[in-house]
Amino acid sequence: MRTFNIHTPKDDLLTDIQNKIDYKTKPLGSLGLLEKIAAQICLVQQSLTPTLSHPAIMVFAGDHGLSEEGVSAYPAEVTHQMVLNFLSGGAAINAFCKQHNIDLQIVDAGVNHHFNFDPHLTDRKIAMGTQNSLKTEAMNQIDLEHAINIGSSMVCHKVEEGCNIIGFGEMGIGNTSAASLLMAAFTDTDIIDCVGRGTGVECEALDHKKEVLKQVFEKHQDKIKAPLDYFRSVAGLEMAMMLGAMLQAAESKITIMVDGFIATSVFLTAKKLYPHIQSYALFSHQSDESGHKHMLEYLEAQPILQLGMRLGEGTGCAMAYPIIQSSIQFLNEMASFESAQVSGQS
Amino acid sequence: MRTFNIHTPKDDLLTDIQNKIDYKTKPLGSLGLLEKIAAQICLVQQSLTPTLSHPAIMVFAGDHGLSEEGVSAYPAEVTHQMVLNFLSGGAAINAFCKQHNIDLQIVDAGVNHHFNFDPHLTDRKIAMGTQNSLKTEAMNQIDLEHAINIGSSMVCHKVEEGCNIIGFGEMGIGNTSAASLLMAAFTDTDIIDCVGRGTGVECEALDHKKEVLKQVFEKHQDKIKAPLDYFRSVAGLEMAMMLGAMLQAAESKITIMVDGFIATSVFLTAKKLYPHIQSYALFSHQSDESGHKHMLEYLEAQPILQLGMRLGEGTGCAMAYPIIQSSIQFLNEMASFESAQVSGQS
Repeated sequence: MRTFNIHTPKDDLLTDIQNKIDYKTKPLGSLGLLEKIAAQICLVQQSLTPTLSHPAIMVFAGDHGLSEEGVSAYPAEVTHQMVLNFLSGGAAINAFCKQHNIDLQIVDAGVNHHFNFDPHLTDRKIAMGTQNSLKTEAMNQIDLEHAINIGSSMVCHKVEEGCNIIGFGEMGIGNTSAASLLMAAFTDTDIIDCVGRGTGVECEALDHKKEVLKQVFEKHQDKIKAPLDYFRSVAGLEMAMMLGAMLQAAESKITIMVDGFIATSVFLTAKKLYPHIQSYALFSHQSDESGHKHMLEYLEAQPILQLGMRLGEGTGCAMAYPIIQSSIQFLNEMASFESAQVSGQS
Repeated sequence: MRTFNIHTPKDDLLTDIQNKIDYKTKPLGSLGLLEKIAAQICLVQQSLTPTLSHPAIMVFAGDHGLSEEGVSAYPAEVTHQMVLNFLSGGAAINAFCKQHNIDLQIVDAGVNHHFNFDPHLTDRKIAMGTQNSLKTEAMNQIDLEHAINIGSSMVCHKVEEGCNIIGFGEMGIGNTSAASLLMAAFTDTDIIDCVGRGTGVECEALDHKKEVLKQVFEKHQDKIKAPLDYFRSVAGLEMAMMLGAMLQAAESKITIMVDGFIATSVFLTAKKLYPHIQSYALFSHQSDESGHKHMLEYLEAQPILQLGMRLGEGTGCAMAYPIIQSSIQFLNEMASFESAQVSGQS
């Protein structure tokens, strides 16, 4: 397994950054979270005049063997149907990326469908989905490493194209189950408290989902101390590719936008492996999926948006992007008290 | 005093609107607040394919006689200095309006300064500021009516230009005090609980602010049952102009973006006069000014953003605008389950 070179950015600039923020023509601290975002991006870029360039979102898609246990409100074929919807521009993530000029890349990591050639689809299919984690490991070691390397390589290409801020989305019927299993292991929370409605599981079906996930958790819990072994036992190929992509983004010192429940569960895994990765991460929103709030609290992460969304696809990243942009705008464009000849506090 | 013709929009379209939202390729309800915003704008525009056109923010500026009592952290001349900063493009609201292509209009409603001619300044000065509300009424009946009519007229012009969504900001040293006084009256809350730090009042100065506002409240509280009499006794000319502008926007059936603590206090007044105005209002953010959360709860309003901002100027409106835009984007651009051939819930 390759290693990544991930360190917290140097903080030599911190005083200069804070002074620049405080001398802007506004009451001290009055831009709230925007000021924290601006300071963090300054540190990531080691610059007092940061920029956002070539923003990108990669959506990884993959199928889950566990979905045959009836843990989702939607049938498994929705994974490939939604990939086709992404390709024809009809999904939420298409609308929001178009709105904000965000480059959108759709990646087949392991969808159980043979797609016709489409210039908009990045074909990195590793398998026709994972194995059923109730019965065996979801993926083997070779496929895990392959997925991580592919995710890493795709981010390298984006960075070469000039991208310095990137978000990751996912599509995979059954992947809230995988995310719940990661959350239970890496936040040390009872698996039952990690299970939510996903895309719309209710009542008896929710009880069934909890029972299945309890069994999956018990089957694999002896591997938790080896995070990657546990990860490959329960996660999806789209999540493994996202893991490699997140790690590479941090190694490449660019800003990572973390999406909702599933993306945050992948981030939790990344942080178990490389604790310094969090310096590069902005948490785009707090999902309506019940466990996400707890995950964010565990990470001591402040979400940018709280819109009650629970859609995945990277939609939280796309929605948060203009807010992140505003933090850079105020830092670079606002006048200082001195330059504008405005009096300070009396 | 003129009257405004403000009614809740007809809800005949409601079922069709909800069906359109629910048939989009996403789990039911998974876009959270975006879905509510989309439905509200559909009703305001009486359309299943709403648009946002010529978005605008008007910033009204005025000085407050009460500021001579030392209720603000900044000296009164900051009002006119910040107007000059708006005109030269150096304030936060400039940066955010530029980012989102929002038309920004700066209005002198009653600033205590003679400005040189500037093509970017809309000169509607009624007086060189208000009277000190600790000693007398802040403004007389004629000036109040004049301000309301001007605000109304300016919105009419924007509507004629094609604007169908508008936000209102303010600049006026001392106006969080006026807003606290409106909140106390119109949400029936103890004046002491309505007083916050404003732009940065702390410790002894905060105790002093509370004591002054208690006296002002007691002086004018007998007028609360005549909301406009109370309003003109404590509010600013910039707030009176905003009141007329909000009422006109609702009469003209366009969407109103409500900013933070001060703008919401004006909205509270507008709602006392015309309860149906709320059908036209989106609440852009929850300010960090302590009373704002309570005001929003009183209005049963869900703020779009919670970024810990407390800057005024209409910055909350500008920051929320891309989120509002996303609600229209998803409604107009996303495919339906049927058109995308995606399976529904099993």
